[in-house]
Amino acid sequence: MAVTLGELAGKLGGQLRNGDPACRINSVATLQHAGEGDISFLANKGYRKYLLDTRASAVILAPAEADACPTAAIVMDNPYVGYARAAALLAPSRPRRQGIDPQASIDPDSRVDPAAWIGPHCSVAAGAVIHAGAELAAGCHVGAGSVIGADSRLGANVVICHEITIGERVTIAPGAVIGSDGFGLAMDHGKWINVPQLGSVRIGNDVDIGANTTIDRGALEDTILEEGVRLDNQIQVAHNVFIGAHTAIAGCVGISGSARIGRHCLIGGGAGIVGHLEITDNVVVTGMTMVTRSITEPGVYSSGVPAQDNDSWNRNYARFRQLDKLARKVQRLERLLAANRGEEHGG
Amino acid sequence: MAVTLGELAGKLGGQLRNGDPACRINSVATLQHAGEGDISFLANKGYRKYLLDTRASAVILAPAEADACPTAAIVMDNPYVGYARAAALLAPSRPRRQGIDPQASIDPDSRVDPAAWIGPHCSVAAGAVIHAGAELAAGCHVGAGSVIGADSRLGANVVICHEITIGERVTIAPGAVIGSDGFGLAMDHGKWINVPQLGSVRIGNDVDIGANTTIDRGALEDTILEEGVRLDNQIQVAHNVFIGAHTAIAGCVGISGSARIGRHCLIGGGAGIVGHLEITDNVVVTGMTMVTRSITEPGVYSSGVPAQDNDSWNRNYARFRQLDKLARKVQRLERLLAANRGEEHGG
Amino acid sequence: MAVTLGELAGKLGGQLRNGDPACRINSVATLQHAGEGDISFLANKGYRKYLLDTRASAVILAPAEADACPTAAIVMDNPYVGYARAAALLAPSRPRRQGIDPQASIDPDSRVDPAAWIGPHCSVAAGAVIHAGAELAAGCHVGAGSVIGADSRLGANVVICHEITIGERVTIAPGAVIGSDGFGLAMDHGKWINVPQLGSVRIGNDVDIGANTTIDRGALEDTILEEGVRLDNQIQVAHNVFIGAHTAIAGCVGISGSARIGRHCLIGGGAGIVGHLEITDNVVVTGMTMVTRSITEPGVYSSGVPAQDNDSWNRNYARFRQLDKLARKVQRLERLLAANRGEEHGG
Repeated sequence: MAVTLGELAGKLGGQLRNGDPACRINSVATLQHAGEGDISFLANKGYRKYLLDTRASAVILAPAEADACPTAAIVMDNPYVGYARAAALLAPSRPRRQGIDPQASIDPDSRVDPAAWIGPHCSVAAGAVIHAGAELAAGCHVGAGSVIGADSRLGANVVICHEITIGERVTIAPGAVIGSDGFGLAMDHGKWINVPQLGSVRIGNDVDIGANTTIDRGALEDTILEEGVRLDNQIQVAHNVFIGAHTAIAGCVGISGSARIGRHCLIGGGAGIVGHLEITDNVVVTGMTMVTRSITEPGVYSSGVPAQDNDSWNRNYARFRQLDKLARKVQRLERLLAANRGEEHGG
Repeated sequence: MAVTLGELAGKLGGQLRNGDPACRINSVATLQHAGEGDISFLANKGYRKYLLDTRASAVILAPAEADACPTAAIVMDNPYVGYARAAALLAPSRPRRQGIDPQASIDPDSRVDPAAWIGPHCSVAAGAVIHAGAELAAGCHVGAGSVIGADSRLGANVVICHEITIGERVTIAPGAVIGSDGFGLAMDHGKWINVPQLGSVRIGNDVDIGANTTIDRGALEDTILEEGVRLDNQIQVAHNVFIGAHTAIAGCVGISGSARIGRHCLIGGGAGIVGHLEITDNVVVTGMTMVTRSITEPGVYSSGVPAQDNDSWNRNYARFRQLDKLARKVQRLERLLAANRGEEHGG
Repeated sequence: MAVTLGELAGKLGGQLRNGDPACRINSVATLQHAGEGDISFLANKGYRKYLLDTRASAVILAPAEADACPTAAIVMDNPYVGYARAAALLAPSRPRRQGIDPQASIDPDSRVDPAAWIGPHCSVAAGAVIHAGAELAAGCHVGAGSVIGADSRLGANVVICHEITIGERVTIAPGAVIGSDGFGLAMDHGKWINVPQLGSVRIGNDVDIGANTTIDRGALEDTILEEGVRLDNQIQVAHNVFIGAHTAIAGCVGISGSARIGRHCLIGGGAGIVGHLEITDNVVVTGMTMVTRSITEPGVYSSGVPAQDNDSWNRNYARFRQLDKLARKVQRLERLLAANRGEEHGG
């Protein structure tokens, strides 16, 4: 669906500059590849080099970049939000499906709203409730007593175990598993015995969960994701974790049991959060960082180690292995030097 | 199902203190949230602060904590084991299922015990054997010639490839893949050729495998997990790995090909084990550690880097990049100072 | 299927030494476990200790090892390639399947070649095309408009989302997800809004993708894997990533959005690649390394931290936390010492 540039500027709440409001915009494209009828955007300085030569009909950008724009511009403070909204407006609308595929298995004691869609090879167990507008792609399994909220969408092969609550407008990407047993073990005379995992998982409204991500059920109480949380792919959320509203977590992060993460946090890819600690609101954890203690102050925290060429790395790491000795050596030197100076000045 | 406090103490092998043996216990709860009829436990010092105000009918705890307990107590050396056993006793028993769902695909040349359960949308290929008491939740696929031992339970969407052996009382959480081809490659004139993966996977009795965990089949010989091993979610076990009995491995660990891990080891979350090395029994590897050489002595090993505030981290890491130079500088200072002192004392 | 040693040497392009060309070879085995009729190989020095006692009928090895071989040898420069080829020759050939399982769901508007195989509980959506020789194991789902190239094989429970292109002779291991939405978020007044993911994924010919690996579709343009790429298990490839031909990536690697990785690269297990950077051809990244900047020179790059015993680690890491201070201390010492020497020599 196309819109005019004027309409688009209005819908985005941006200011149109140097452009014909009647110009038709059909789609969104990158600065490098946009052509006539495309709108592009500049939200990352690294791509500024492509602005001058863009053939986009218009570009969404920040006020500071407007003068450099060779074509029409929609100027707004957050051009990335503008891009997101423009792309949503221009994207072909997804057809909604309703009904139950004949190759789905629906337990007679479940309740599937007539305005929900259950794809082929899905199963819905006894006591489960699928609300209106929810869509289960092929191969999804919803366990006994679980609830899928209105307008939530499960990608193919998603597993929702028993007695789990999924809010409204939640999207869960293919292969994700919600509500598997937490990793609760007790060592008893040389053998592990399992701690029964009796809690559940509660996923708030407007949460997104990535492909092949796993979220374990709580041991006694529940694992909780508040509204608006964003989880990328391949994330592991252990039992009894709490993730506050609007926190976004990048791929491959592991969060250990009973960790409590605040609201509006950003956790970088590959980070690890140790269990039984608390991270306050508005904390940024950069990629591949390991959080081992509670974080009580908002701010940015890091321990991800950037690559060096292998020779330098090996040389430096060999010294790290002796860093305590090196520090003691420096202390000795300090004492010696102080003694020398004492001798000199006193002598 | 409820028990009396006296019965419970007896079954746990603990000593009842300050309690009415006839008091009825219905369920297990945390110190903070327990109420009348609940039993709670104290197994982690971090939660001691909740003991004084607990409203649990009784608390399972260690002898050293007993005096501080404001309510009835079951005193035992390992209260976490007590909690695990109490929770198992009080948990509602899971109904067992038997038979074959009409929407399962069972090859006529497979053998499914009448006392096994095959859920909807499962497939069991030719030559596969499913023993009595085994349960396959929806969407599981068991490849040709594979064996699922008695009383083993597969969560939804588990994939067991061909010719794999799963022991008895094994649990495999949803989305796990056992027996995919190992990552065996040979570079031949600029192109990769694949090394056929002709081995299998053998999973011992009483093993637990987490959600979306992957275990590759061996190249020539087998990938082996001995009895009682515990694997958490999102773990990658490469071809020809051996994991000794009763070793527990936390989430997101990656184990490279032909690594051999001993018995009763604990591997922390996000750790990485390099291939073709050996870790002896009773080794603890802490979270996000990388094991690059064989470990021949029991003990605790680490290289996971704890987070700092980003400014400190950047300052320190900038120095790390020059650590070899710094160490040389210190050596030079030592020599200079020694020479100075020589001059002084000799001069 | 058996071959003679002479035939085998010919097919591998190796030189037969000390062997009877008519000796029958039935299978491949390790040096330790080979017996009569087995051929073994020596490709990793760590296994040289097993050569002397091997009971293999013949061993594939490099010229430098030939003199030490107690049995017949096939001598060639790359014995690992020889092993791979021998194993492929001797492996039982996999029967090919054709047709559509009655328990598969095929949209009438899709096109499945009669020489393709669609297993039970698979679904193929409208507009999808499955070419000749392609095989979908049980539980695979191919979304609307996606194409599976000739002779490509999908393991059980693979998900191919909509409008994805998979080349020819591609293998995708169980549980992998190709084409889920990228993690594109914009923060708008305290709430995340999703950036529509309008691009696709294009997988070149002869690519292998591991179990439970995830590859996201592009935001505006496509995520691309060129021909011959090898991905191990549990890898996360974010939106708009480009991976050049014949690059191999080990398990548990995470690659952030818009990263561009060259050809013939090797990325070690557990590594992390930050987004919006470029890695040139022929780069080796060792295990658990974090690449934070573009790499413009071929070579080996590292930041994975090898384990130490926990006491040493804690001591050294405590010093690392103060490394900037230590470096300043050393600078002060240098100045002091220079001043001292100035005093001495000048005084």
